[in-house]
Amino acid sequence: MSGFFYGCAMRTVWWEPGAVCLIDQTKLPHTRETVRCTTVAETATAITNMIVRGAPAIGITAAYGMVIAAEAAAASDSVDLIGELAAAKTTLDAARPTAVNLRWATDRMLALAHALHERTPTAELIERLLSEAHAIRDEDEAMCYAIGEWGAQLLPEGANVLTHCNAGGLATAGYGTALAPIKTAHTQGKQVHVFVDETRPFLQGARLTTWELQDAGIPQTLITDSMAGYFMRQGSIDCIIVGADRIVANGDVANKIGTYSLAVLAQAHNIPFYVAAPTSTIDLSMASGDDIPIEQRDPREVMYLGGQLLAPEGVQAAHPAFDVTPHTLIKAIITEHGIIEPPFETNIRQIMQQPASSDEPSAAPAGS
Amino acid sequence: MSGFFYGCAMRTVWWEPGAVCLIDQTKLPHTRETVRCTTVAETATAITNMIVRGAPAIGITAAYGMVIAAEAAAASDSVDLIGELAAAKTTLDAARPTAVNLRWATDRMLALAHALHERTPTAELIERLLSEAHAIRDEDEAMCYAIGEWGAQLLPEGANVLTHCNAGGLATAGYGTALAPIKTAHTQGKQVHVFVDETRPFLQGARLTTWELQDAGIPQTLITDSMAGYFMRQGSIDCIIVGADRIVANGDVANKIGTYSLAVLAQAHNIPFYVAAPTSTIDLSMASGDDIPIEQRDPREVMYLGGQLLAPEGVQAAHPAFDVTPHTLIKAIITEHGIIEPPFETNIRQIMQQPASSDEPSAAPAGS
Repeated sequence: MSGFFYGCAMRTVWWEPGAVCLIDQTKLPHTRETVRCTTVAETATAITNMIVRGAPAIGITAAYGMVIAAEAAAASDSVDLIGELAAAKTTLDAARPTAVNLRWATDRMLALAHALHERTPTAELIERLLSEAHAIRDEDEAMCYAIGEWGAQLLPEGANVLTHCNAGGLATAGYGTALAPIKTAHTQGKQVHVFVDETRPFLQGARLTTWELQDAGIPQTLITDSMAGYFMRQGSIDCIIVGADRIVANGDVANKIGTYSLAVLAQAHNIPFYVAAPTSTIDLSMASGDDIPIEQRDPREVMYLGGQLLAPEGVQAAHPAFDVTPHTLIKAIITEHGIIEPPFETNIRQIMQQPASSDEPSAAPAGS
Repeated sequence: MSGFFYGCAMRTVWWEPGAVCLIDQTKLPHTRETVRCTTVAETATAITNMIVRGAPAIGITAAYGMVIAAEAAAASDSVDLIGELAAAKTTLDAARPTAVNLRWATDRMLALAHALHERTPTAELIERLLSEAHAIRDEDEAMCYAIGEWGAQLLPEGANVLTHCNAGGLATAGYGTALAPIKTAHTQGKQVHVFVDETRPFLQGARLTTWELQDAGIPQTLITDSMAGYFMRQGSIDCIIVGADRIVANGDVANKIGTYSLAVLAQAHNIPFYVAAPTSTIDLSMASGDDIPIEQRDPREVMYLGGQLLAPEGVQAAHPAFDVTPHTLIKAIITEHGIIEPPFETNIRQIMQQPASSDEPSAAPAGS
């Protein structure tokens, strides 16, 4: 398995002529299958069904989905390319409502098409859209490395870090968000050990995060989500790092269900709670986390595992896929532009106005 | 399924000549199998492997295990019946270290044998031991009903109650501890709805509590353990009731892993957190929860489900089976003798000194 993910050409999301290709993350770690999406509908379904998941990775997937839409419009000699792209954006955006990177990426693709379409031949426009999607992917990877550099500063030698879900290479173009500081610290030669929440119901922690950490050679302990409080009370956890699906203006964060409980427990034990995410996750259009739509998924995803019914027939279940962590429980937000500390409202706005040239980590984190 | 459990002769633990019989709780709800234990070793293994689980139910099982030990000693013409019973007690007590009801029951059986053996023929002694084991079972059932009466007073009309693990009929001689107030309130005609934590890794909530509530006709919603905080923040949960494996002198409570996290979350949301348990669960020999041994079970129980490996090969996992909730997070302890409120240290000692005749619930809860 060593080198499987980073050593070869294999990526989470990649483009082949006419198709966006995805590792089927519902099958990992035991089965490696590729899903090829050749239509917008297939791409949206793959996002809804969590073939690809993780806010940055679904943003990249949707960007390629917009290329598919442009190619389909060209092939059918459509006179309304922009209209068809707007329709594709609507379909893709609806695939998962909570993460904002998805619509951030489709917005960016549609804006480029708008800017170019009147003076650009269709074939060239498609070429430019594909370059833009590649750019979104490449920028994401660069952002992850920058998050790693910033975040590694927060990890002391010998740190025991708890993480939830998978905000790693499989959730992004590569390297990850929450896992980036851990990987960078490890690369820098620091001793780091990770407690991995298994993350029911999809078990992204047990299936994906463990696999990535194993590949990176980072020591880890898999636990059930219910054990996190026990280990915090034992003094076994030095900090928590999670990813984010959406960060709003006041610093409230939507992330995988269970994140909020961890933040409450972290506060009760005086353990720093960090969120790591690229600035494409920040949505200044919303004032507070109360405004974030929480995706309610099929309850059968709670009741079944690997096709096996866990509970008696006929039981009712609930499946909110995300929760909102209020900014008051967050110690800092680690972005590619630096570490944002409270007051979040002010410091988030400040970091969002920074020119791209300030991306390089320096001695003093921005916003601190 | 209706009436399956309470309507027929089926019980969690029952005696047949020469054997203690158990419903195999690792196979529920889809498969109903009986395990017959005819030796002390088999009985201890069934307890360790969680064929039977729940502090009161393993106490009853161990009491019958002591009868098996006495019969085996008689059959082999042993001259040292007490020595053999003491050895059986050691084996049974070691089967699971956290719950105190187990050794409470074996203590009681051994004490009876001590009191009788010099002036009682062996056949009659075995008869008396069997009667004592039956008495432990019957008293447990009566205690559960009394807990139900006391606890139902705490549930308002329309209550939404969260519970964790299974502290129901399957964890006791019948009826349950944490589920007893819910069942009694329902029988009294109150509207009650239960949020059932699935309770990883053994899924006692998903498999057993749902099944019992379905049988009782009580509305419920199954959730993953990580969702409890989300529903508390939504204002969907009015109170939490859990069972206990051991309650010590200061009121600290050992219970299924994940209980502590719920108690911290309950406090953060100002939601009352109740523990329901018979007084046989109270261990005055320990001053605080720090003294309670926490069973560390096989990590493979976290990594595998239904024989299926959830994580990559070679991953390390941890499996503390219980945690300790400090008494400061507990609103009240519901026992068969009444509701114990803070200060727990004083009120627990007081309730433990009450004569048996005060068991009947009356208007004013004891200890309040």
